[in-house]
Amino acid sequence: MSLQEDVERLHARYAHAIDDGRLEDWPGFFTEEGRYRITTAENEARGLPLPVIYAEGRAMLNDRIASLRHANIYEPQRYRHLVSSVLVERESDDWIRSTANFLVVRIMENGETLLFASGRYVDRITLPGLKYAERVVICDSQRFDTLLAIPL
Amino acid sequence: MSLQEDVERLHARYAHAIDDGRLEDWPGFFTEEGRYRITTAENEARGLPLPVIYAEGRAMLNDRIASLRHANIYEPQRYRHLVSSVLVERESDDWIRSTANFLVVRIMENGETLLFASGRYVDRITLPGLKYAERVVICDSQRFDTLLAIPL
Amino acid sequence: MSLQEDVERLHARYAHAIDDGRLEDWPGFFTEEGRYRITTAENEARGLPLPVIYAEGRAMLNDRIASLRHANIYEPQRYRHLVSSVLVERESDDWIRSTANFLVVRIMENGETLLFASGRYVDRITLPGLKYAERVVICDSQRFDTLLAIPL
Repeated sequence: MSLQEDVERLHARYAHAIDDGRLEDWPGFFTEEGRYRITTAENEARGLPLPVIYAEGRAMLNDRIASLRHANIYEPQRYRHLVSSVLVERESDDWIRSTANFLVVRIMENGETLLFASGRYVDRITLPGLKYAERVVICDSQRFDTLLAIPL
Repeated sequence: MSLQEDVERLHARYAHAIDDGRLEDWPGFFTEEGRYRITTAENEARGLPLPVIYAEGRAMLNDRIASLRHANIYEPQRYRHLVSSVLVERESDDWIRSTANFLVVRIMENGETLLFASGRYVDRITLPGLKYAERVVICDSQRFDTLLAIPL
Repeated sequence: MSLQEDVERLHARYAHAIDDGRLEDWPGFFTEEGRYRITTAENEARGLPLPVIYAEGRAMLNDRIASLRHANIYEPQRYRHLVSSVLVERESDDWIRSTANFLVVRIMENGETLLFASGRYVDRITLPGLKYAERVVICDSQRFDTLLAIPL
């Protein structure tokens, strides 16, 4: 397998874990100190350090899932990820940078389907092991943020 | 070409055949006894053996297309498939398993465009030859089913 | 990297250039005499030589971007491209043909998000160098055409 295939496979496994509702698997895609951040294109362009969601390290990532599961205040819903246009760049023996486009469809329990979010993933990935040291989710629109429950 | 590329190419040829309206080519993507099934995530989760559409073997697949063409009771429409996050697993010398996400946009003759269906393909593929021995289309929503004419 | 990966990378770089708003990079994806054409499936099927947009050669491609930037009559907006089902065929030592499905989401400044266009890219690509000698964008619907500002 090529490096391109390795990275696309990582992104694919991540997408399927979330879309299948296996949220407990989500922290495992990150390194021990891995950072996850959802922000908007507008905030990024303005240099505003204002992420919609921020988590750093496995413990915080695990917490986020635990509170999702137990607080359980959100309406039952599922995502479907489409990921494409994956650019992969090897920075060094230990690091890869990747940028990819995504589109997430949200499906409510009654079957209602919505184009929920679009944007790009900007990732820093460790080698070997292929884990996210950083995954920044830059959404095109700020419209979704009050609705955001499951990680993108 | 890698096995990953082989499988993605199979999925791509399948998508283009349908999107180009070459429906007569559709059965040829399956083995002689190939099975095709459209179901919903809800039915799969409950273990209900209740597919929305079921066809087994080339004769039945051909019949489905013939009746589509001749009964012709559905409003003219076209699909556009987006397929991503393709996971490929080699089971043995003869078999591959693949899971992929899809999104289908439907375009009516008047140009009206709709996010029509999303879900995942769960496939069993033969080697050599790269045909679907089984293609299960698990849709996220049950909303579309009365509208379903062309295979997904 | 395989030829498949090379072509997918070209399509990915093209998509990110547009989606990031780096429109001045757009002509550089084409050969010196490269042709770009947006048309509809209906026009293609009827053999109507009636593209919605046509540009031939870098000068004309540059002009198009310059007028977009300076006339600036369109409402601020961004695209997000999803590209999949990329078929690659080597015609000769110098030429590749590629067909791919796309879906473009348009995001307005107020965050409003719309499934804007779907269709396929039919490309002729030069080797070596990997530039578009021809990129034909065949849209599924004719509905968008009065709204079209940024290249697809």
